[in-house]
Amino acid sequence: MRILTALMVQVAIVGASGYAGGELIRFIDAHPSMEAVALVAHRSAGKSLSEVHPHLSGGDRLLRSFDPPSFGGVDLVFFALPHGASAEPAMLALEAGARVVDLGSDFRLDTHDRYVEAYGAQHPHPDQLGVWAYGIPELFGPDIAAARAVAAPGCYPTSAVLAIAPLLEAGLAEPSGIVVDAMSGVSGAGRGVSDALQFGAVDESVKAYKVLVHRHRPEMERALDVVGRGPTSVLFTPHLVPMQRGILSTVYLRSTEGASQAACEEAFDKAYASSTFVRRIDGSPETRWLVGSNNCLLSVHVDERTGTTVVLSAIDNLVKGAAGQAVQCANLMFGFDEAAGLPSTGWMP
Amino acid sequence: MRILTALMVQVAIVGASGYAGGELIRFIDAHPSMEAVALVAHRSAGKSLSEVHPHLSGGDRLLRSFDPPSFGGVDLVFFALPHGASAEPAMLALEAGARVVDLGSDFRLDTHDRYVEAYGAQHPHPDQLGVWAYGIPELFGPDIAAARAVAAPGCYPTSAVLAIAPLLEAGLAEPSGIVVDAMSGVSGAGRGVSDALQFGAVDESVKAYKVLVHRHRPEMERALDVVGRGPTSVLFTPHLVPMQRGILSTVYLRSTEGASQAACEEAFDKAYASSTFVRRIDGSPETRWLVGSNNCLLSVHVDERTGTTVVLSAIDNLVKGAAGQAVQCANLMFGFDEAAGLPSTGWMP
Amino acid sequence: MRILTALMVQVAIVGASGYAGGELIRFIDAHPSMEAVALVAHRSAGKSLSEVHPHLSGGDRLLRSFDPPSFGGVDLVFFALPHGASAEPAMLALEAGARVVDLGSDFRLDTHDRYVEAYGAQHPHPDQLGVWAYGIPELFGPDIAAARAVAAPGCYPTSAVLAIAPLLEAGLAEPSGIVVDAMSGVSGAGRGVSDALQFGAVDESVKAYKVLVHRHRPEMERALDVVGRGPTSVLFTPHLVPMQRGILSTVYLRSTEGASQAACEEAFDKAYASSTFVRRIDGSPETRWLVGSNNCLLSVHVDERTGTTVVLSAIDNLVKGAAGQAVQCANLMFGFDEAAGLPSTGWMP
Amino acid sequence: MRILTALMVQVAIVGASGYAGGELIRFIDAHPSMEAVALVAHRSAGKSLSEVHPHLSGGDRLLRSFDPPSFGGVDLVFFALPHGASAEPAMLALEAGARVVDLGSDFRLDTHDRYVEAYGAQHPHPDQLGVWAYGIPELFGPDIAAARAVAAPGCYPTSAVLAIAPLLEAGLAEPSGIVVDAMSGVSGAGRGVSDALQFGAVDESVKAYKVLVHRHRPEMERALDVVGRGPTSVLFTPHLVPMQRGILSTVYLRSTEGASQAACEEAFDKAYASSTFVRRIDGSPETRWLVGSNNCLLSVHVDERTGTTVVLSAIDNLVKGAAGQAVQCANLMFGFDEAAGLPSTGWMP
Repeated sequence: MRILTALMVQVAIVGASGYAGGELIRFIDAHPSMEAVALVAHRSAGKSLSEVHPHLSGGDRLLRSFDPPSFGGVDLVFFALPHGASAEPAMLALEAGARVVDLGSDFRLDTHDRYVEAYGAQHPHPDQLGVWAYGIPELFGPDIAAARAVAAPGCYPTSAVLAIAPLLEAGLAEPSGIVVDAMSGVSGAGRGVSDALQFGAVDESVKAYKVLVHRHRPEMERALDVVGRGPTSVLFTPHLVPMQRGILSTVYLRSTEGASQAACEEAFDKAYASSTFVRRIDGSPETRWLVGSNNCLLSVHVDERTGTTVVLSAIDNLVKGAAGQAVQCANLMFGFDEAAGLPSTGWMP
Repeated sequence: MRILTALMVQVAIVGASGYAGGELIRFIDAHPSMEAVALVAHRSAGKSLSEVHPHLSGGDRLLRSFDPPSFGGVDLVFFALPHGASAEPAMLALEAGARVVDLGSDFRLDTHDRYVEAYGAQHPHPDQLGVWAYGIPELFGPDIAAARAVAAPGCYPTSAVLAIAPLLEAGLAEPSGIVVDAMSGVSGAGRGVSDALQFGAVDESVKAYKVLVHRHRPEMERALDVVGRGPTSVLFTPHLVPMQRGILSTVYLRSTEGASQAACEEAFDKAYASSTFVRRIDGSPETRWLVGSNNCLLSVHVDERTGTTVVLSAIDNLVKGAAGQAVQCANLMFGFDEAAGLPSTGWMP
Repeated sequence: MRILTALMVQVAIVGASGYAGGELIRFIDAHPSMEAVALVAHRSAGKSLSEVHPHLSGGDRLLRSFDPPSFGGVDLVFFALPHGASAEPAMLALEAGARVVDLGSDFRLDTHDRYVEAYGAQHPHPDQLGVWAYGIPELFGPDIAAARAVAAPGCYPTSAVLAIAPLLEAGLAEPSGIVVDAMSGVSGAGRGVSDALQFGAVDESVKAYKVLVHRHRPEMERALDVVGRGPTSVLFTPHLVPMQRGILSTVYLRSTEGASQAACEEAFDKAYASSTFVRRIDGSPETRWLVGSNNCLLSVHVDERTGTTVVLSAIDNLVKGAAGQAVQCANLMFGFDEAAGLPSTGWMP
Repeated sequence: MRILTALMVQVAIVGASGYAGGELIRFIDAHPSMEAVALVAHRSAGKSLSEVHPHLSGGDRLLRSFDPPSFGGVDLVFFALPHGASAEPAMLALEAGARVVDLGSDFRLDTHDRYVEAYGAQHPHPDQLGVWAYGIPELFGPDIAAARAVAAPGCYPTSAVLAIAPLLEAGLAEPSGIVVDAMSGVSGAGRGVSDALQFGAVDESVKAYKVLVHRHRPEMERALDVVGRGPTSVLFTPHLVPMQRGILSTVYLRSTEGASQAACEEAFDKAYASSTFVRRIDGSPETRWLVGSNNCLLSVHVDERTGTTVVLSAIDNLVKGAAGQAVQCANLMFGFDEAAGLPSTGWMP
């Protein structure tokens, strides 16, 4: 037992009361080599875990305040905070010697221009932009493994970038004119209370939102620029659908010469041959097949009639799109199996 | 009272037991100048209306068999049958002197080639293809008013064509490279029993289906060719979402020179200036705002960055996408106000 | 036209921005003899109807403020306000000569003791308690027709009292030991924003709430005491289920001697023989059969094994349980057909 | 590795294609001391696991036919078959030396009379009735631990009996006049295809079904007779609600002298003091707090006004109500920790 304890990564979760925070607790509790030693919250500080996440076991644990921030004895800090809230404490955690995985958006973009375009504000640590590893393990694994600071991607970018990267890498799609049309369950909007997220406003209805202006679009381009080794352009339309979890992205790409059905399938199969969680299937994926798991299911459909390739990409927005992928990154950072502590089984029905 | 009776159009509804059939009964029962004199069904023949549609009033009416078909004393027949089933009886109804609105797909396409491409079979009356009026009143009103036989459009084509036509007519979008990405509630699949439509397979999940091969794509092109005065090409991806009713189509068009936001908005406002049911809004539409009504809400969003125009289009698939539009067509055929008997109010919440 | 105008009841709706307010607007807009001349709101005052209820037609009408309250030229005022808010303005409306239907709970109870028990506060006009007609037309029709002030019942009491009254009246059930176990869609909680009504908290889950202490229990007993001509006792457990609309009450009564299946069915059939909206069925009712309508469907099941009679009662909480029944009461107050302007057709699917 | 293999219980799952079968595979795959060596199905025989349960990992495993039944090398067989289908093969499995947990209803009842009452047919092995252990570990643990054959209870009886037993045992409730009013998610009806389980028939609606005649009522009484040491009588009303999983039972019992709130709470706390999964809470349980886990949450509410005690009981019908409890029984039968392989964490949101 003592020996085991010595190998345990001591983890703090900052922002433990949100949906992503709850998922982090679930995964770390199930992790063979990580241990949650601090659950930190703002407005919920002082409450027990069972008040905040009644579905989790170990409900008598207390959520503690983040004031003053303290990272003594902590090896790894996950931040699951709203936009703008992690920039400062994350730097403190790094200075204190901890490694950091930030589930927020503060360190995802690569240039200050892009940051200002997306968020309409100056970044407090612009020198950090482009320095943090971008946390999609299937695409940037070596970077992540070598990093002390990882920016875990947004849910939509995870889904879209995994769908697009193999075709760009293989030269089977044009880097511009990409359309990402995605639909998300309601948990993607977080746990804050709002009029637009009341059951009465969501149930039995669908809508698009933030048309042309969603902040995940620059993030997609930032990642795809690297993959495609040049500038890419994306048009992104997110939709809200009446379900708790899950994202399905339908991506339209302009095919290049040689983009046959067989070639495109092969590009995916090759790109994700060694992946635990990402896989191409025949047919087309349903989100219920993977909700609850860290899986991503993809399918590719070449339309020779219009010179377009359609890729379907399904993930659980809170798992592969947030907390699961964050733990997957942390696994790489500490040399563990990428799947340690993570579910590869869904919850259907 | 006698005088009123003389003005009553005597209506038969063939296929009364399905979802569209039920909606037809609802609308005709509320119609000031139409009267349902025959409710016809196949497997449900002999049952009372209350067994088949427990939500409708007048439940003691009996559904009668269609064998032999008989249209004596009937002025108007609505057919709401599966694909292929209306071609023969619709011709009999016309011969018997009735006017016909077919909600099925048998008479929607304009050429035999297109029919064979979409349905993989020969048409029994190929001479009728292109002869029937295509029943979108906002676009083909004079044709419909003059017709004895109208093919009411599919739900997806209604939603898509209303979204695309004003831009094509105004020369503000390219006729090719159009992408229609749509999501539909479950009633769009009809009332048949299947494994894929069980609650356990639909609830809390989304999926695309019939990717690249859905039969509504040729129908969209058939209508848009007329509107655009030349060949158009569409890529269509339908999705199933966990709700009863509603379609939201997100349409991507390549902008032409001059396709400014203002110009596009004006094209919509002009195209539907005199319409009772179709209207452009600022913001973006939610299906719950119109479910239950014959309305179609549209919004247009020009993305100068990528040279793309996005149009959002929301309808109730069973009303504007089926039974409501069919009654709207019949109103034109008989010289009534296009809105007679039709709801312009939704059901939220 | 002038003559018609003279027959039009001029209606004000106070609390127009809530769910019940929206339904009132829908019904009055469809009413042949009533006209909404004032839509009054608090926080939404100054907004257009389309901002508040995007599903309703006539969306350019403005919601006006209630300060100062003014009822000049108004024949009838509907109040659809939270508990406690209608007591004062309703008295002003009556003084100004208007008739009043209050959808709130301020005037429903019959004694001050009962009021204090239910609401934990003094009533500002205790002399009014027991004076207002209690607005279930099927049970208290003559009172309502003669009244200038009607307290429209709560949604749960409507459902429960309609289920219990025929058996009590016929002496087929004991007046004590009645259990009302009911489940309601989310709109029953009103349109206010709360953590407990977020999609994430409601979807895919059920719960009981306010166990033993819900305020609708004293209201049920108040009505049943009259029907049963003596004191009754009810235990009431409300549940929240993940749907927009609908209440299903499952009521357990102790059978008296003679409470055979046939006798109980006859009691219901006799009690509601002349009713437009309330009806006993064989089998058991589903809420989707009536959601959207002012109907109430009932079934009765005598269990000789345990000496218990089970009654199932289904309504739409916003229609028969609120706005629909309020209009039904108003119809009686003005001598119209009880069904004028009211839907008797549901919305399935 | 060899040593570990020697400790692995070799498991066959018969009826692997249903919902309960899928859950059994999930739990056994996660079990440290059990291994699924045979997945057996009827109509799905020959298919891969991924075709039948796309959410499970290890999808390339094949489902094999049950003809002829063979249990060589199998230590434990789970049967998850429709009513009537397990009686014969379960006897064969026992004869072959395997232990058996039957999730079906064939061996749950204790007398032939009760069986005939519930199922309207003769039992093929009436001598087995009352011989099998009844598989609620919290109440019948020693029986189960000593048994070679266990009948896992139905979902509703599990929920109800756990709610009632502590009060009966402590003499705090009358054994007769018990009312169980329960609502269940749709997966409780199994995975068969039917008109009544289509999304269009379930979504946005609730209903009671099999009023007074559901077969789980005799099963409840069978278990409670043992607990209460005398005859009990139950009235049971099941309801279908629009969600995938979860049961909430609201139980009404007649209080005895001394049934104070404190005494009743103490009875529950004492009864389940050593339980991993069953627990009383203050407030009232929501099914989303436990869906996905083997937990049962209970609350008790004494109504002195009417002499009634209300107990709320929430479980996941497929886990504690089926496959989870079956594995929990098997753990006792083989001397493992009762929680081995079983989740105690829910899935919210």
